Amino acid sequence: MSSLKPADVGIRTRLFQIIFESDTPVAKGFDILLAILIFMSVGVILLDSVQEYHERFGTLFYYTEWVITLLFTLELGLRIYCLHKPLLYLKSFYGIIDVLAVLPTWLMLILPGAQTLVVIRLLRTLRLFRVLEMMALVGQGRLLLDALKRSRGQIMLFLFTILMLVTIFSTFLYLIEPHEAGFTSIPTSIYWGIVTLTTVGYGDISPVTPLGQFISVMIMLAGYSIIALPAGVFSAEVIRSLREDRYSDEACPGCGKNQHERDAKYCKHCGTWLNEEKEEPHSDTDKHPAGTE
Amino acid sequence: MSSLKPADVGIRTRLFQIIFESDTPVAKGFDILLAILIFMSVGVILLDSVQEYHERFGTLFYYTEWVITLLFTLELGLRIYCLHKPLLYLKSFYGIIDVLAVLPTWLMLILPGAQTLVVIRLLRTLRLFRVLEMMALVGQGRLLLDALKRSRGQIMLFLFTILMLVTIFSTFLYLIEPHEAGFTSIPTSIYWGIVTLTTVGYGDISPVTPLGQFISVMIMLAGYSIIALPAGVFSAEVIRSLREDRYSDEACPGCGKNQHERDAKYCKHCGTWLNEEKEEPHSDTDKHPAGTE
Amino acid sequence: MSSLKPADVGIRTRLFQIIFESDTPVAKGFDILLAILIFMSVGVILLDSVQEYHERFGTLFYYTEWVITLLFTLELGLRIYCLHKPLLYLKSFYGIIDVLAVLPTWLMLILPGAQTLVVIRLLRTLRLFRVLEMMALVGQGRLLLDALKRSRGQIMLFLFTILMLVTIFSTFLYLIEPHEAGFTSIPTSIYWGIVTLTTVGYGDISPVTPLGQFISVMIMLAGYSIIALPAGVFSAEVIRSLREDRYSDEACPGCGKNQHERDAKYCKHCGTWLNEEKEEPHSDTDKHPAGTE
Amino acid sequence: MSSLKPADVGIRTRLFQIIFESDTPVAKGFDILLAILIFMSVGVILLDSVQEYHERFGTLFYYTEWVITLLFTLELGLRIYCLHKPLLYLKSFYGIIDVLAVLPTWLMLILPGAQTLVVIRLLRTLRLFRVLEMMALVGQGRLLLDALKRSRGQIMLFLFTILMLVTIFSTFLYLIEPHEAGFTSIPTSIYWGIVTLTTVGYGDISPVTPLGQFISVMIMLAGYSIIALPAGVFSAEVIRSLREDRYSDEACPGCGKNQHERDAKYCKHCGTWLNEEKEEPHSDTDKHPAGTE
Repeated sequence: MSSLKPADVGIRTRLFQIIFESDTPVAKGFDILLAILIFMSVGVILLDSVQEYHERFGTLFYYTEWVITLLFTLELGLRIYCLHKPLLYLKSFYGIIDVLAVLPTWLMLILPGAQTLVVIRLLRTLRLFRVLEMMALVGQGRLLLDALKRSRGQIMLFLFTILMLVTIFSTFLYLIEPHEAGFTSIPTSIYWGIVTLTTVGYGDISPVTPLGQFISVMIMLAGYSIIALPAGVFSAEVIRSLREDRYSDEACPGCGKNQHERDAKYCKHCGTWLNEEKEEPHSDTDKHPAGTE
Repeated sequence: MSSLKPADVGIRTRLFQIIFESDTPVAKGFDILLAILIFMSVGVILLDSVQEYHERFGTLFYYTEWVITLLFTLELGLRIYCLHKPLLYLKSFYGIIDVLAVLPTWLMLILPGAQTLVVIRLLRTLRLFRVLEMMALVGQGRLLLDALKRSRGQIMLFLFTILMLVTIFSTFLYLIEPHEAGFTSIPTSIYWGIVTLTTVGYGDISPVTPLGQFISVMIMLAGYSIIALPAGVFSAEVIRSLREDRYSDEACPGCGKNQHERDAKYCKHCGTWLNEEKEEPHSDTDKHPAGTE
Repeated sequence: MSSLKPADVGIRTRLFQIIFESDTPVAKGFDILLAILIFMSVGVILLDSVQEYHERFGTLFYYTEWVITLLFTLELGLRIYCLHKPLLYLKSFYGIIDVLAVLPTWLMLILPGAQTLVVIRLLRTLRLFRVLEMMALVGQGRLLLDALKRSRGQIMLFLFTILMLVTIFSTFLYLIEPHEAGFTSIPTSIYWGIVTLTTVGYGDISPVTPLGQFISVMIMLAGYSIIALPAGVFSAEVIRSLREDRYSDEACPGCGKNQHERDAKYCKHCGTWLNEEKEEPHSDTDKHPAGTE
Repeated sequence: MSSLKPADVGIRTRLFQIIFESDTPVAKGFDILLAILIFMSVGVILLDSVQEYHERFGTLFYYTEWVITLLFTLELGLRIYCLHKPLLYLKSFYGIIDVLAVLPTWLMLILPGAQTLVVIRLLRTLRLFRVLEMMALVGQGRLLLDALKRSRGQIMLFLFTILMLVTIFSTFLYLIEPHEAGFTSIPTSIYWGIVTLTTVGYGDISPVTPLGQFISVMIMLAGYSIIALPAGVFSAEVIRSLREDRYSDEACPGCGKNQHERDAKYCKHCGTWLNEEKEEPHSDTDKHPAGTE
């Protein structure tokens, strides 16, 4: 978002600050109003899908949807208006979502029923996290995301291995089990395999032969044991994130020891003044994000 | 509870000590008696709901319920009597529960069947934790609660993101799957989505189209992978709680700041020699078991 | 087991060493033979319960069971014979299991069908862990048990709170849902509540009303979120166990710093000889099991 | 793989480098091509198992399968050709998989339907991890595997204990529950027990008697609580792996022992000054990323 600069210092700049930023009371209010409209609009879609409510309040729902869509379309127009490079915005993640949020209702004019896709508007609430950013909450959220990013590689590797094994075992079950039990094709068997491994267990398909049940039990125990893996990896990463936050990596000019807490002014080992390296602890954090331990 | 002061040093003070405190044998006995009555009363309600037992012991259950309710009403009266500011108590968490615990049976006189709500009495057992407080157990319980409180923000963020994604995916399934498979409305689809994501998997609703099954599998794998997140966050917080033990609570003789790491020799804020307070780390640990951060 | 002393140095002592101990090859062989017999006997019971195998191999199974029972009865006799205080043994955990392991077959003479209870013999395999004790495995097993013991209090507290909330919510569902959906009594509703909270989700009982489904979703999300708690507590405890093992709590006589690794001979901070306190590192471990950090 | 040496410096050496290694662009390309063929072949098998696609594209699938099999057979021939000791390769894990990957299609000539076993080809993708080895990903993967290996003992112990208890409880349910509820034999009951404990809960078999439901609830709560154990053990192991990074791998100039903590100034074994090796802790970290313990 930082690449999107306001157009001029006049109305466009003020609009930019209200719509794209959230550090003034008006801008925060705008964000919250947006959130309320999004939730209201999604609520209308949800209720409209219930036959009973559709019959009773269908017309009300219809007009509410149109009013909110017009407001969102207006907002989209303003967003484009107040930017120097609107194309850059339209190609960004939030730009795409903003367009997708108004498209379904307009599409409804041509293609009845399309308005259900309006639920995609929910993704717009991701913007809300910008409001949260001002709260303590987000320091934690970023920590969570950091840990998630770092453990992503391992979790992907883990998922890939799992899927490979599930495919092999599911194929065996397809060969062993009668089609009547629900194992009608290998893809269906894989669907069953994942339903089993993730311990969801709908029961729409379940093995009936002793051998099939035995292999199922193996898959279950595997699923039950390996669920620990991503949890373990992720815990370890969160713990590492918490720990890294605490210690600076700068060495003491007196005794040369490092691993001082970030807020330390004097070396805890020899009492030397540490401040020369620590005048801007935050920029310091940026230079040495990872530390060593 | 600390804001509730005994009325006078006479009978009301003694009643207060018995009913509201639990550090004397009589007060502990009172708490335990209360717990037994609560469990007995809830047991009666449970058994009475079974048709067979209702027919056989219905009258016995009815009178037991009334006796316990009268005892609880008497107790509630005494609680109000022995307090200076009874209104403050009635508006507190425990006060509300105490009233709710007797209300259903009295309501039954007007509204038959209301007595089932008496199960809310179970919440009164929360008082029991006061008895546990005297035991080692609670040090741990508090640790658990602390970690829970600190990880609350992250877990809320996590739940919100999950719910948003489940809503979007469930709507797609509502569009894809035939109504006969159980996806009759978007709210029902969301119900199915959460049943799936949390790996409960009743099987009352399950996808029947290949595309629906594919999206389901994505939701399951997501649910299976991200279950690690709250576990990871929470583990990290518990570990942090345990580690806070690492900090000494002794104040620095130079600048008066505390929170030095236990192995620190010099104050990290002013560089003063700390050792005089650190000759007996063990007795030190005993005096300040929890530390503050 | 250490309180059971051999009777005399003759045959009873030797029998004691073979039967009750497992540090000689003969004694280990005895333990392994016992394990094989236990698994064989349980296997026979399992197979005999399958109608098809019962018809074909019923007689074989019958005699195998009797042979193994006679062997176990003989072994029980020898155990009693070679002990000074057999009653003490019979009242111990393993003594009770040993008697329960032979009883069902003998009971069968009076009460046909009782032999199925022979599966309790499986508990005898717990003795096998004695054999494992000689292997590296058990150091880990003990660590696991230690961590389990320490987190027991918190996990009990956790289970109690859960059960209380499940009872309250299940009662609401009993009131809301029609009896036809399976919520026929409060105990049945509680059964459903736990099936849901633990994410088992059989689907034999599932809510059909919108409000019931909404409350179910709350229970599921609660169950999904709080599953992190025992995992977190337990992880933290295992990590603590691993860490405590590593550091000695003795201070360095040179610089006064503690937290040296258990195998350290010289202070890593000032190079002073640490050995005076560390001549018997293991007895040392016993004196200071917890350390401070 | 390191024991497999190229035959001569001519074409066989070059073939060896392409097929068995993956550090040149050609060799990497070969690996990726192999992966594509494997996924394509498995995809064909999956689609062919769907009745609808089989009828439409059956012949296409048949020939694709044969082409890929011929390519794999050729590749297997080249692998054998370019090795000095092909038997050693054929007896290795990857050798066996390579043979199993082509066998099913050839078997199909004698035994129609055998080609479904071709899914075993998926195991060949394990070779791909060699490509990944060049990426950062694998450092993590190895960490994961290390932690898994170390926690294996405890997890086996854990699984054994679980299975023992499930067997005992399932037998009780077999005795209590009517055969109509699905508990037709003890092995079937054990299948149900594991379906319950792992929280899969198909619902094909579920208890109908109050006592059976009560025991089920015990199994569920047990399963729900103990799922924390492997997660805890594994988390701890991952964290230990991360922490091992703490140890420097530099040998002491005095006694030659290594494994000093990174902040150590003196050798903990002989008290020698270590600092000369520790002037650049960062470059040090880079040279020895994993440490040994």
